[in-house]
Amino acid sequence: MELTQSKLGRIVFARLYEDEDLLENINLAANQSNVKTGMLTLIGTLKHATVGFYREGKYETTHIDGPLEIVSCIGNISLKEGKPFAHAHIALSDEKGEVKGGHVMQGCIIGATGELVLIEAKDLHLNRKLDEKTNLSLLSMEKQ
Amino acid sequence: MELTQSKLGRIVFARLYEDEDLLENINLAANQSNVKTGMLTLIGTLKHATVGFYREGKYETTHIDGPLEIVSCIGNISLKEGKPFAHAHIALSDEKGEVKGGHVMQGCIIGATGELVLIEAKDLHLNRKLDEKTNLSLLSMEKQ
Amino acid sequence: MELTQSKLGRIVFARLYEDEDLLENINLAANQSNVKTGMLTLIGTLKHATVGFYREGKYETTHIDGPLEIVSCIGNISLKEGKPFAHAHIALSDEKGEVKGGHVMQGCIIGATGELVLIEAKDLHLNRKLDEKTNLSLLSMEKQ
Repeated sequence: MELTQSKLGRIVFARLYEDEDLLENINLAANQSNVKTGMLTLIGTLKHATVGFYREGKYETTHIDGPLEIVSCIGNISLKEGKPFAHAHIALSDEKGEVKGGHVMQGCIIGATGELVLIEAKDLHLNRKLDEKTNLSLLSMEKQ
Repeated sequence: MELTQSKLGRIVFARLYEDEDLLENINLAANQSNVKTGMLTLIGTLKHATVGFYREGKYETTHIDGPLEIVSCIGNISLKEGKPFAHAHIALSDEKGEVKGGHVMQGCIIGATGELVLIEAKDLHLNRKLDEKTNLSLLSMEKQ
Repeated sequence: MELTQSKLGRIVFARLYEDEDLLENINLAANQSNVKTGMLTLIGTLKHATVGFYREGKYETTHIDGPLEIVSCIGNISLKEGKPFAHAHIALSDEKGEVKGGHVMQGCIIGATGELVLIEAKDLHLNRKLDEKTNLSLLSMEKQ
C-alpha cells in the first residue's frame, strides 16, 4: 500500500442524456471541468451495458441487455497520456432486481438519465502508467 | 452531457436507527443539515427493502425480504419543490451473499444501523424538474 | 436519525498491491494518513473474498472464489479504541458479471490493483462503541 494526499478542490455535477455513452461522457465531464485527479459516483439508468472482467492480461467483455438501473457506478479520475481519464466499475439491476456488473467499458448507453458527481483533488496530478506484468494502466502514487 | 460546479461545503454524518425508513431519513438528514445539493453514500443493514425499476414512465417495485446487508447506497441531494431531496440507488446482499438492488423507494427499513455520509456542494442549488417525456423529476444543471 | 457535521479536510489516494489484504490496508491507509473520520470508496480486483452477513449478534461469513472485480467498496472511517478503523461493504463480480457481496472481512485479497479514495472530515472524531443489543461496534454521533 502506498498513498498520497492533497487538499480538496471542487465538486462537479453532470447530467448525462439519453443515448450518450457512459464512459465517454464521464471522460468528457472530467476534461471539460479540468478535474485531473478525483473521485466519482454516478447513478441513473442504462439501455444496455458492456462490462469487463480482467483476467490474465486482458478484459473479457459481457454484454448485458436492458433496460437497467445503475445501482452504483464508482471510481476515480487520473491522468492517462496527459488527459483526465475515468476508471469506473458498475453494478446494474434488471426488472427482477437482480444485479450484474463489472468494469465500465464503452457501450454502456444512458437511458432516461445519468447523474454524475466528481470530487476533485486540488493540485494533485496522479498518472496511469502501463504495467507490463498485468498489461493494465495502473494508478501511480507519484505526485507530479 | 451538461455540467455545473462549485466549491465543496460541509461533510455530514448521520446514524439511522432500527425501524427507520431509509429514504425518509436520508431526506430528514439533508433537511436538518440544510444540504441543498450534494453527494451521498451509506452502508448498514435492512430488515427488508422496496426497490424500484424504471420502465416506460413509471417505477415498477420489487419487495426484497431480509435481513439484508446494504452493500452500497449512493446518490445525490438536490432540491425538489424547494426542499432537499435524495435520489439514491441501492445494492443489497442476503445470507448467501447474493445481491439484488434498484432505485430506493419508501419501505427500506433499517436493521441494526445505517451510516450515512453527505458531502455538500457549497452555494449550489440544483433543482429537479418534472420531465414530460420520462415522467421523472430529472436533475437540472441550471444554477440558481 | 441523529447527525453531526464538520468542514471537509483532505483527500487521500492509496494504491493497494497484489496479495495485500483489503481491510488491513484500508485501515493502514487511514492510520498512515491520520484520517480519523471520513468516507471511503475503492475499486479494483480481488483474488478471492471473505464477506460477512450480520444476523442475531454475529457475522456469518461467506468465502467467494475469484478472480473478482470489486464492483464497489464503500464505507467510512471512524475511531475504534482510539485508532482509525474502516467499516466497508463490498460488491464483487465474476466472469459472468454476476454479483455477490457483503460486509468486508479480513480475507479479501487484492489481485492486480486496489484504488482507494478517502475523504476526511476535518476536526471530527467519531467513535465506535460496543452496542450490547446488537453486539456491534456502532458509530456514535457524539463529537469529541
